[in-house]
Amino acid sequence: MNNALSMFFQPSSIAIVGVSRNPNKAGYGILKNVIQTFPFKDRIYPINPSANKILNLTVYASLLEIPGSIDLVIFFVVPKDIPELLIQCSQKGVRGVIIESAGFAEVGQEGRLIQERVQKLGQKFNIRIWGGNCMGTVTDELITTFEPIPNEIRLKGSLSLVGQSGYFSGAVVLQCFTERYLGIRKACSIGNRIDIDECDLLRDFLEDEKTKVAAFYLEGLKRPREFINIAKSSKKPIICLLGGQSRVGRQAALSHTSSTTSGSPELLSGLLKQAGIIQVQDFGEFFNIIESFVKLPIPTSNKLAIITITGAGGVIASDIVAQTFLEIPELSAATELALKAIFPPWMPPKNPVDSWPAFELHGLDTALRKIFPILLGDEKINAIILMIACMSVAASFDPEIISSLKGYKKPIITYFVGNKMVKSQWTDIIRRDGGVVFDDINTCVKSIEFLYLWNKFQNREVF
Amino acid sequence: MNNALSMFFQPSSIAIVGVSRNPNKAGYGILKNVIQTFPFKDRIYPINPSANKILNLTVYASLLEIPGSIDLVIFFVVPKDIPELLIQCSQKGVRGVIIESAGFAEVGQEGRLIQERVQKLGQKFNIRIWGGNCMGTVTDELITTFEPIPNEIRLKGSLSLVGQSGYFSGAVVLQCFTERYLGIRKACSIGNRIDIDECDLLRDFLEDEKTKVAAFYLEGLKRPREFINIAKSSKKPIICLLGGQSRVGRQAALSHTSSTTSGSPELLSGLLKQAGIIQVQDFGEFFNIIESFVKLPIPTSNKLAIITITGAGGVIASDIVAQTFLEIPELSAATELALKAIFPPWMPPKNPVDSWPAFELHGLDTALRKIFPILLGDEKINAIILMIACMSVAASFDPEIISSLKGYKKPIITYFVGNKMVKSQWTDIIRRDGGVVFDDINTCVKSIEFLYLWNKFQNREVF
Repeated sequence: MNNALSMFFQPSSIAIVGVSRNPNKAGYGILKNVIQTFPFKDRIYPINPSANKILNLTVYASLLEIPGSIDLVIFFVVPKDIPELLIQCSQKGVRGVIIESAGFAEVGQEGRLIQERVQKLGQKFNIRIWGGNCMGTVTDELITTFEPIPNEIRLKGSLSLVGQSGYFSGAVVLQCFTERYLGIRKACSIGNRIDIDECDLLRDFLEDEKTKVAAFYLEGLKRPREFINIAKSSKKPIICLLGGQSRVGRQAALSHTSSTTSGSPELLSGLLKQAGIIQVQDFGEFFNIIESFVKLPIPTSNKLAIITITGAGGVIASDIVAQTFLEIPELSAATELALKAIFPPWMPPKNPVDSWPAFELHGLDTALRKIFPILLGDEKINAIILMIACMSVAASFDPEIISSLKGYKKPIITYFVGNKMVKSQWTDIIRRDGGVVFDDINTCVKSIEFLYLWNKFQNREVF
Repeated sequence: MNNALSMFFQPSSIAIVGVSRNPNKAGYGILKNVIQTFPFKDRIYPINPSANKILNLTVYASLLEIPGSIDLVIFFVVPKDIPELLIQCSQKGVRGVIIESAGFAEVGQEGRLIQERVQKLGQKFNIRIWGGNCMGTVTDELITTFEPIPNEIRLKGSLSLVGQSGYFSGAVVLQCFTERYLGIRKACSIGNRIDIDECDLLRDFLEDEKTKVAAFYLEGLKRPREFINIAKSSKKPIICLLGGQSRVGRQAALSHTSSTTSGSPELLSGLLKQAGIIQVQDFGEFFNIIESFVKLPIPTSNKLAIITITGAGGVIASDIVAQTFLEIPELSAATELALKAIFPPWMPPKNPVDSWPAFELHGLDTALRKIFPILLGDEKINAIILMIACMSVAASFDPEIISSLKGYKKPIITYFVGNKMVKSQWTDIIRRDGGVVFDDINTCVKSIEFLYLWNKFQNREVF
């Protein structure tokens, strides 16, 4: 509890200003999520001057009526009301507020003036301010956002996220849970960054024992030098999607989260790279690289084997690998010999391991259970891409084979092509069991390269 | 029927050598698919010396026992038996054979010699040879492959495909049907190209009225100059994924389909580009670009609008567009005025059209039904990317809106981020109704750019 941001992540009591009786309103959603997750039910204080009870909790008319002190206040009220409410917060000993309402600097001059006033009051009263124009937090201990996060889909884990954009942050969390089966430690939507910014959170994530991977979607860095300095000492992967790098993108960012970036995007990108920060360019890549770092072990060399049911997969993977720092080495004599026992004599195994003759001979499942241990046991091979065609020839494929190979501590990524019904079922099983599946070969290869290069950087073998 | 390849696509009779009673064997699958699709059931002749009836058809002991002439013969027998069988074919007036068995030049010297002999006999007897080491054909009129293609998933359409790889060709067809809802006109797996090659098929596709888009996966071009010459006159989009461009990829291609490419990959790629051929680098891109050309109208300018529920989507899309030949123009005065009626006064609409304030005001579905016609009616906007966050705020989204906008003849691509259950359901509905959804913004933008650049090329406004 002595952490600088503990009032946001582990508050001792919570007041919510702007709760609503209407289940479709954000002011209801916030309260519902807090009740679902906050352990001290008697220290949740909904505020609404025109309601008595909501969700079985006593509703207070104002902050000042609440008995005892308040640690964290969540606001979903119009911006112009907030300065006055901050004065009440200071009287109640509040240490932090989360402002989820929009309508600040992102909408123009009037909002900008309110935002400045809120910022100054926070400094004056020593109250840390989170937001506004944000979606709050989704952590493994507390949910303060308004988006419904049912317990059935929620997964606890080692990923900590920052998203400047509200809806995008919410959507990222939902996609992490439901599509990628990624558990969240702390997902933080920070919006206009009136006070709390990515530097505060990066510091928090690096100190936090439960955070393994830190990821950021930002529309410009608020304190670039500080962010880079903190990142430099990180032993954890930091993944960053920086929006607003182009002229049109910058204008869009301005009206979105009132972010402005000065200076050259190329220079900033170079500085982030020097600090070891992994940069991605797109939402799709954001999910893929995060998933790779959270789920996969780091390869200790650039040497990759391909196991494929279709020769075309091996050919295209080879072409893509040729454009990276990775390598598809020839098989060692011992590995080739071991594989030969599974392959018919007329098709000696090579890398890429085009395995259909072995599949025809033994059945696909049996052959894979022999091929995988041979390749993973070879110390010269440090990562594997498996390519399966979802068609009758692969009917015996058991997606659970992937999780059974975790003990080898080498990254395995699976690519499926073919019948969607089979493809999506197998993808879901592998992802649920902690494995990685991507829908194109380029992403499979590049993800392994990202892991490999990050490790090189950590060892200071910089390119 | 006077087409050069009509014996393959519309044969008057079919014999299958190597049929099997075992439903798991390819020799059974071929027969089953032919029975399912070939209209003249009394002109299907299964050949197997040790069977009487399979699938209710009379089985013949040899080709020579079949009454009357035979147009097309499909082989699934060991390569060494084929030369002798070709002599029988010549006696029966056969015009074409499809060899689906593997074991030719791709496995070494012995296979290479058989392949050469088969090739020479084909020339001698004037029999066109398709394959070997291939999966035959899946057309809207006939299926000769062994992979089960149930009628429930089969879609007829305007896409014609060539895949050199067997399993990959089969998997592509299954994925086109089940995941992308792409109808096939002619899907052709040509394997080792003993005779029939991509030039024969490109010529066929360009002459074929029902083919709208032609796509090729090839491990090297057999007759590059010829292919490029045919392509030059094409008014149809030709999409090409060329495997074996790198050293390791080339070696993999050699043992896969015995393909060898001489000369520089860069030079070849340049020549293909000059001929207007659209080149892709990966399986994922292959599907995405094919789907875009089959389903979407061609934009007549490079001007794009973004409709997004999350500002972050507009920011990232802008950054990606900035790296292309596309442009996100400012809204015209008339369009801005029309949109203003839907937006709250504190959030004037811009392009990217960050629409959540309009969604909050009218509900998402109602707002979209107002915004789309305004943007699509603006002649300065020729394509739209729609970005929807699959979360509670978008609950009223109706994916059928996309197909209702087809009359505007402008490409619309949708991107979803968020809850997978919702995401995959909406994706499926839009794709089934002929629309396009991609899983990252980069693919959305680049696909529109591919359409735009192809059109520029067709109009000889070459870059």
